[in-house]
This record gives sequence, C-alpha cells and structure tokens, in this order.
Amino acid sequence: MSSDDQDDLVFKALSHRSRRQLLDLLKGEPRTTGMLCALLPELDRCTVMQHLSVLEQAGLIIVERRGRERWNHLDALPIQAIHERWIGPYAAYASMMLSKLKREVEKAPEH
Amino acid sequence: MSSDDQDDLVFKALSHRSRRQLLDLLKGEPRTTGMLCALLPELDRCTVMQHLSVLEQAGLIIVERRGRERWNHLDALPIQAIHERWIGPYAAYASMMLSKLKREVEKAPEH
Repeated sequence: MSSDDQDDLVFKALSHRSRRQLLDLLKGEPRTTGMLCALLPELDRCTVMQHLSVLEQAGLIIVERRGRERWNHLDALPIQAIHERWIGPYAAYASMMLSKLKREVEKAPEH
Repeated sequence: MSSDDQDDLVFKALSHRSRRQLLDLLKGEPRTTGMLCALLPELDRCTVMQHLSVLEQAGLIIVERRGRERWNHLDALPIQAIHERWIGPYAAYASMMLSKLKREVEKAPEH
C-alpha cells in the first residue's frame, strides 16, 4: 500500500464524527468494545464495531484480544505523522503558542 | 457552525490526495494559484481552483489578493488542533520520539 493509500484510510477514518468521538474516548485509556458501546448509547453495537474496524484498518487503533474481550487502544502515530508533514518539529513550538493565543483571544470577554 | 461541522470540513478537505499535495507545496512558502498550477501540470486550472476553495473553506489556507494575483498561505492551526485533540502537549515529546524510532526501524537494513 502506498503512503497516499494509507493517508486516504486515515483521513477517511477521521472524516466521520462518531469515529472521532471513539478516538476521544480512547485518548485517556484503552477500553473494551462493550465499554465504548455503553458510552455511546445512541449507536448500536454493530455500528460501533464497524467504526472500530475502519479505525483499525487506518492504524488509528490497535486491538488487543484478551479472552472474550476486545481492548481498543488509541495509536497516535498517524496523528503525529499529520503534524510532522505540515508543521514539523521546528514550527511545533510556534504552532502550539499560536493555538494557545487563539484560544485565549476567543475566550476573552468582548468590550 | 459547530466544532464538529468545522472538523468535518477539515477532514473532508484533507481526504483528497491532490489537496494534501497542494498543502505540501504551500508548507515552505506561500504561492500564487498560477505557480501551483505550474507545479501540478496533471491538474487543470479549474480543478486546482476548486481544491483551493475547499481548503480555504476548511481554514487550511488563507488567501491574500494582491492586484490580480491570489497568494495562498498554509494555515496550520487546524492541523495543530488535530494534534492537540488526540496527543496534547504532555504526550507530544513521547509521540515525536516514537515516530522517530519508527522511521529509524523502518529504514534499518534487514539482516
């Protein structure tokens, strides 16, 4: 698979808000598929499993099978690769500070 | 527009490889639409302009009009936001080192 094909999978996976929400839930700690379904009661189990499969194919999660449980771990390497592609280590500090400034400006009360 | 709507625009914009290629060309310096067309002879001018419009709507480029020229600047803030959402400042160093390790391992000759 070419790097472009791999990137297609990553951005296709990230383009759906339920899949972004699943990654949000996995940011702090790994969770089983059952736990994720309980946290997203608006989605049925089959939909959650399909989304997890798209995320796994894109390399955004790593699945660890323990007995009958399926533990889903966030793999942030593709996210890191996006950052390195367009920002890179030299501009990382400046981008972080700009982003912080933007948040400060947006939350400042208007006069 | 909600944050989810804005993210939909960003990931939709990034999901097309020609648009990622345009961002690659803008990483080092701003370029006019004419320069971008010359660098991507496989795309016609109309297609390049459509892609630039999608990138502009997503906030990934900022367009500066100077006379008859249209200078396109990469705006990396949405890329920084992706990084902060799933990696965050505390894990940034670890992710960068892991990514570097992955590159080293992949380029090492096999024995």
